[in-house]
Amino acid sequence: MQSHLDQPAIGVDLGGTNIVCAAVMAEARIIEKHKRPTEVPKGVEQVVANIKQCIHEVLRKAHLSLEQISGIGIGSPGPLNTRTGIVINPANLHGWHNVPLRKMIEDEFHVPVVLDNDANAAAYGEKWAGAGKGVDNLVVFTLGTGVGGGIIMDGKLLHGPDDTAGEVGHCTIDYNGYQCKCGNRGCLETYVSATGIVRRTIEAIRQGRDTIINKMVEGDLNRLTSKIVYEALEQGDALACEIFEETGRLLGVGIANIVNTLNPEMIVISGGVIQAGEHLFRPTREEVRRRAFEEPTRTAKIVPAQLGGDAGVIGAAGILVQHLTLKTPTQKNHG
Amino acid sequence: MQSHLDQPAIGVDLGGTNIVCAAVMAEARIIEKHKRPTEVPKGVEQVVANIKQCIHEVLRKAHLSLEQISGIGIGSPGPLNTRTGIVINPANLHGWHNVPLRKMIEDEFHVPVVLDNDANAAAYGEKWAGAGKGVDNLVVFTLGTGVGGGIIMDGKLLHGPDDTAGEVGHCTIDYNGYQCKCGNRGCLETYVSATGIVRRTIEAIRQGRDTIINKMVEGDLNRLTSKIVYEALEQGDALACEIFEETGRLLGVGIANIVNTLNPEMIVISGGVIQAGEHLFRPTREEVRRRAFEEPTRTAKIVPAQLGGDAGVIGAAGILVQHLTLKTPTQKNHG
Repeated sequence: MQSHLDQPAIGVDLGGTNIVCAAVMAEARIIEKHKRPTEVPKGVEQVVANIKQCIHEVLRKAHLSLEQISGIGIGSPGPLNTRTGIVINPANLHGWHNVPLRKMIEDEFHVPVVLDNDANAAAYGEKWAGAGKGVDNLVVFTLGTGVGGGIIMDGKLLHGPDDTAGEVGHCTIDYNGYQCKCGNRGCLETYVSATGIVRRTIEAIRQGRDTIINKMVEGDLNRLTSKIVYEALEQGDALACEIFEETGRLLGVGIANIVNTLNPEMIVISGGVIQAGEHLFRPTREEVRRRAFEEPTRTAKIVPAQLGGDAGVIGAAGILVQHLTLKTPTQKNHG
Repeated sequence: MQSHLDQPAIGVDLGGTNIVCAAVMAEARIIEKHKRPTEVPKGVEQVVANIKQCIHEVLRKAHLSLEQISGIGIGSPGPLNTRTGIVINPANLHGWHNVPLRKMIEDEFHVPVVLDNDANAAAYGEKWAGAGKGVDNLVVFTLGTGVGGGIIMDGKLLHGPDDTAGEVGHCTIDYNGYQCKCGNRGCLETYVSATGIVRRTIEAIRQGRDTIINKMVEGDLNRLTSKIVYEALEQGDALACEIFEETGRLLGVGIANIVNTLNPEMIVISGGVIQAGEHLFRPTREEVRRRAFEEPTRTAKIVPAQLGGDAGVIGAAGILVQHLTLKTPTQKNHG
């Protein structure tokens, strides 16, 4: 049993644009990685064929036979069902409806396969091998185009009966606030996602704020991205600095809610925005101290993610390893 | 072992005003109950003596010897430490500092004793014997002077490393909102607690709203309580009706956050305010549907608590029973 779990696992990060597969050692080190386009417009069968090809390719590059791996963990866009292994109808896997992805991969490779959503996989990666290594109660906030996350309690991902738990970006921080894509108003996501950062920057510029950002986008605010705001920050632009300060404070409101509700040991923040370092983390921590109860605030370390873009593949492999570890020995007879 | 767990447990609900003790059968039925004043001003020793006396009295009334009970569960105001059994420094147990309450009760009765906070005890009561019977993932919102709560995941209370998890009343729903007693701004509690209901009613009256409430308090708004607003509602007062409608909607904002974050099977609402029935529950459910994701919203039944004021004693006994059930058989040698 121990030798079995010491075998490498394959992690799959299925995205709307690319598929990334990696062979990951039990101690969470990537041996080999392979990436290829997802090709969503070509249809479900082609995407699944691409996943299989990507797994075969990483096995080939790592000189691994199927007998030498413990299994395959897949992180996919949700909604999905972790128990049945079915991907329901993700917005960025257009055309997918109730695809039995786990079974399709099991039928090809005949090894244990687990399926979880991409945000959970990335969160579990940080727990298994990144900022949260050794920590059993943590919450990950992933700031990108939207704001996702994952909740790990007692070392395990919190899924909920519908596998929808962990949507920390869709907590209201102002019930009269901005309209969110999800239909709600004032979600944390509307403030601190890349979209939220751009919107707040444009609002400030339209109010007449002086900034080098105007020049950087050559006067065309439609070209503004959160990356440009970050570049302006690096050049010492006062508005960009304020925008990141405000982002940190608003993120702190959302984190304070989680600190008061769940009393986690750690909050991990991931996404490109963490490049801003203390410009983001200082106001975030200050706001949490200002808002949440003292004791859980002292406990909850607020730290940047460590795995970057690899969190998803590493975490997918990690979920497979945990799944095998938690299973009874009699069921661990694959490979 | 089974016969041992079939024995009645003693539940203790330690409040700032009264101590309530009950002998509770394993199927969560109260056999006997006894209540006496806490007498906080007389000091820690006297309060502890009062707890002991109250337990002895309920044993006497129920004709139970110590050999016939499985143990004692205590729900106390927090902060406290469930692992060490120490009550730290609750606001409404003035003069208490790091009181080893569990040990003091163990030393008197020589049976297993567990300590948890009162909000958790009440939440567990609803799970064990009330609205949440048979449900393993639920969140209880208790609306009183403040707003407390408890989170039960996989059948167990979520404590967190500092035993502070479950403060669902102190989630921000408007980051620029009202100042809360806890130091934060815009906590759910500032809107939907009894205090919040009174404040919103007074604001509306000061803005010139016509209502029978003015007459009910004989023009003295200092005398207004949430109970009077409820009585006005019963008499069909339009303002009172709107205030409860608004309370439901604001509560719905807080519940939607929990639904998106935790994907629970059930939300239980307790406190005097649930007397308002559909005047409260209809707008609450509507607001959750408006704000939270569709799938977890369909799953999360929003229901009134069933145990009323007995939730605390029943739940305290229930926590003891669960504690003994989860312990290894070799440790179950008391009684």
